[in-house]
Amino acid sequence: EHCAERGILALNLMGAPGCGKTALLEATARGLEGRCRSGALSGDLETDRDAARLEAAGIPAAAITTGSACHLDAELVHRALHRFPWHELDLLFIENVGNLVCPAVYDLGQAVNVVVLSITECEDKPLTYPPLFRKADMVVLSKVGLLPHLPGISLEAIRDHLARVSPTPNVIELSAVTGEGLPVWIDWLEARRARA
Amino acid sequence: EHCAERGILALNLMGAPGCGKTALLEATARGLEGRCRSGALSGDLETDRDAARLEAAGIPAAAITTGSACHLDAELVHRALHRFPWHELDLLFIENVGNLVCPAVYDLGQAVNVVVLSITECEDKPLTYPPLFRKADMVVLSKVGLLPHLPGISLEAIRDHLARVSPTPNVIELSAVTGEGLPVWIDWLEARRARA
Repeated sequence: EHCAERGILALNLMGAPGCGKTALLEATARGLEGRCRSGALSGDLETDRDAARLEAAGIPAAAITTGSACHLDAELVHRALHRFPWHELDLLFIENVGNLVCPAVYDLGQAVNVVVLSITECEDKPLTYPPLFRKADMVVLSKVGLLPHLPGISLEAIRDHLARVSPTPNVIELSAVTGEGLPVWIDWLEARRARA
Repeated sequence: EHCAERGILALNLMGAPGCGKTALLEATARGLEGRCRSGALSGDLETDRDAARLEAAGIPAAAITTGSACHLDAELVHRALHRFPWHELDLLFIENVGNLVCPAVYDLGQAVNVVVLSITECEDKPLTYPPLFRKADMVVLSKVGLLPHLPGISLEAIRDHLARVSPTPNVIELSAVTGEGLPVWIDWLEARRARA
């Protein structure tokens, strides 16, 4: 509500541990530089390592440590928001705990759901973990630079599996290392921000 | 209890979605061929794809679909066991739902906890998701064949992070594709089985 009132776009960024959520936000910071102001709340069980990485990349960031909880909830996010210069932002990224299951059922007050799926995670994750993919407004296929070294993996098969659980999936293929796909992602963010 | 009474070693195999649990079991089937009899119960939210892959690899396998539950529990495992020729086995693998958080707190009646950690998941997962690593009897570092293509990743850093949460971590570096590390894993399984 706070964000919607002020025209700030809040995004809930979800995905498995190590799928590249933090790396995506680091690359996003570079892509958005001078175009709009972004900030991040970063959830982990322990440590503020992800928030520290984001601060180093130029995004104001606050860590939310959950202890043993497997997801963020609206209360945790709300509390963190008030320790944070959120009203100065255009985009607020909420980096959820790495988990392809539990975050699917908790509303954080976000406007947009983004799921990051690393192509190293095998092609069938949309079929075996469908709830999160069903509610995704955007699926970012990450680490696509590794494709030549993953002989068993086909992007077409991943897209096909996504289409089976979500009739019109939005998909961007992206490498945070090479920058492939980054301009498409940045344009999509700005277009969604303009509608906020 | 059923397994302990009959000298069957039950292993709880945990790790993030797409870390390579099923691929490890496929490779294990090849490695154990003619040496001992293994079977698997395979947990996923939906589909019996993992169980089908294991059956194809020669391991008797049954799927446990959890719907939206993020972990297996002892009741689900017990029920699946009785639809399954478990008493003919030496090793029973329980492939948990892909999740680096929730399975840490549910006892399935296993004798041994194995955590699979893909080296594509960044080096700091033991620090950001410590509970699962703290209770691991063995950590299998998977997909090590990709190391030359991951310039940011060092196996030494992963081992160092593991040692910070678990004083004496057992670690095997393994590639299910090249077979690197597989003999060490098979020997460890047989040694643990001999003590069951």
